[in-house]
Amino acid sequence: MRTSVTVYAPATVANVASGFDVLGFALHKPGDFVTLKKKEKKSVDIVAIEGDGGKLSLDAALNTAGVAVSGYLKAAGFPFGVDIILKKAMPLSSGLGSSAASAVAAVYGVNLLAGRVLPRQELLPFTLHAEEAACGTPHADNAAPALFGGFVLIRSYEPLDIVKLPVPAGLAAAVVHPHTEVRTADARRILKKELRLVDAVRQWGNLAALVAALYQEDLGLLGRSLQDVVAEPLRSLLIPGFPGVKKTALENGALGCSISGSGPSLFALCASLEEAGKVGRAMQQSFLKEVSLESDLYVSEVNQEGPKVVED
Amino acid sequence: MRTSVTVYAPATVANVASGFDVLGFALHKPGDFVTLKKKEKKSVDIVAIEGDGGKLSLDAALNTAGVAVSGYLKAAGFPFGVDIILKKAMPLSSGLGSSAASAVAAVYGVNLLAGRVLPRQELLPFTLHAEEAACGTPHADNAAPALFGGFVLIRSYEPLDIVKLPVPAGLAAAVVHPHTEVRTADARRILKKELRLVDAVRQWGNLAALVAALYQEDLGLLGRSLQDVVAEPLRSLLIPGFPGVKKTALENGALGCSISGSGPSLFALCASLEEAGKVGRAMQQSFLKEVSLESDLYVSEVNQEGPKVVED
Repeated sequence: MRTSVTVYAPATVANVASGFDVLGFALHKPGDFVTLKKKEKKSVDIVAIEGDGGKLSLDAALNTAGVAVSGYLKAAGFPFGVDIILKKAMPLSSGLGSSAASAVAAVYGVNLLAGRVLPRQELLPFTLHAEEAACGTPHADNAAPALFGGFVLIRSYEPLDIVKLPVPAGLAAAVVHPHTEVRTADARRILKKELRLVDAVRQWGNLAALVAALYQEDLGLLGRSLQDVVAEPLRSLLIPGFPGVKKTALENGALGCSISGSGPSLFALCASLEEAGKVGRAMQQSFLKEVSLESDLYVSEVNQEGPKVVED
Repeated sequence: MRTSVTVYAPATVANVASGFDVLGFALHKPGDFVTLKKKEKKSVDIVAIEGDGGKLSLDAALNTAGVAVSGYLKAAGFPFGVDIILKKAMPLSSGLGSSAASAVAAVYGVNLLAGRVLPRQELLPFTLHAEEAACGTPHADNAAPALFGGFVLIRSYEPLDIVKLPVPAGLAAAVVHPHTEVRTADARRILKKELRLVDAVRQWGNLAALVAALYQEDLGLLGRSLQDVVAEPLRSLLIPGFPGVKKTALENGALGCSISGSGPSLFALCASLEEAGKVGRAMQQSFLKEVSLESDLYVSEVNQEGPKVVED
């Protein structure tokens, strides 16, 4: 049996315009690498974190990877502990599910160290518990696509009910992370607790059509469905240059463009990897020109795999 | 070319629990028969209505069939008029889309008399205009499934964007119409104009999963998705005996049960026609036992055909 493993888990785009709090998809890159080493001492320790610019705590109880592994070991009653090395290969607080990626990589890895005891779907609750510890609310729209790959719908949280959706061939995303910060707490606070019924009807009409578009591989319908009348109108206020960058994405052929998770990253879904590259570069130019913001660009097909072992 | 035609258009179940205002499906029965006779005089006249108990006006401007045919002839500039005979073979104000069935049968028929000038999807706006004239608001969740058959999603009203969804093999409905009245205006008025974001998220999670369930033919998921936290909790207050009848439907094996349109009819989706018969009879018994209400029962697979010519 393995005594150590390194797992890569991908960044994810949550909400996906019309799917606020219930839909997300996985990217190939960026992502997080988590190395786990089994040890006799029954403690979970984060021994090192790279790539976080010193921002993350080494306290395992304050880190989603640590919380997820502790929860897993405790629930299963395993007689071993784990040392964790985290290598963040993606920006923190970018709206790309960084904490979910760490939790998913960690729990996927510890399950391998334990001899693949639990099927994949039973790993999800540990990542949600970890997300709750880190972010205050148990949202699955990053963790579920990071764990299962592809587009994942969360029908219900209580009980947890997850639906994996199909991915049209070639579908790709440009994700642009402008170098500005949006705190998740602020992005939550700016939302209203109530919405107009007419707006809710528009939102669920679009989300239902988005799901149909994925099954039918209808990219025209997919593009028309990528509309958010609930979160985007408010959260976009926290992202300098948003209207112009979105407009640029659509003018350059993106099927749709909206905020990734709670931002500040934007995603644009495109018909091919090539289109996504073109759209992404135009969005970067627009951020620079409109509000003098530098940004990172990630171009990726939708990742249908989820976490993977990269090294033993 | 035909000079007269009789068209049958089916009753429809709108909202379908989680799809408030955006989803509906068609039944095989009940339905409406509309006979149209071409005439030289360029007027649209309703010459007779049967089966309405004298409740409907003969004024073509106040009847959805009359408004739909007038709109069609005017838009296309056809140099003929039509006499209409309406045979209502379904209850009025029952929540089964009676006015939409008449409009759909009428416009489908007049298009045949004109030589099938317009493709089916271009007939929908005439029925919506007619529904608006009759009900005050242009809702497509009855007219669209009556016209196209099957499950139909309305992604957007402006512009009108319709998605036909697949129907799992064997899927059937029990529709029970209790002999009590719910005025559409009251059913609208009892709804709140705002809803909590958390409730909206539950609703669109369920609707998105319902769409996925139809594509995957996953009846378990379909059943779990048939939940309405928006309209049912309020509108059910207008239907005597609702909680007990719904409970009875679920206990007898229905996948889900909710209000058809704005009520008072209830629908239960079931895995087979046989199941739907059993469930429907149990619901009728429950209405009788709980609140001494007589009812009509309609048992039908989902109608994938829409309107059809029954007689020349």
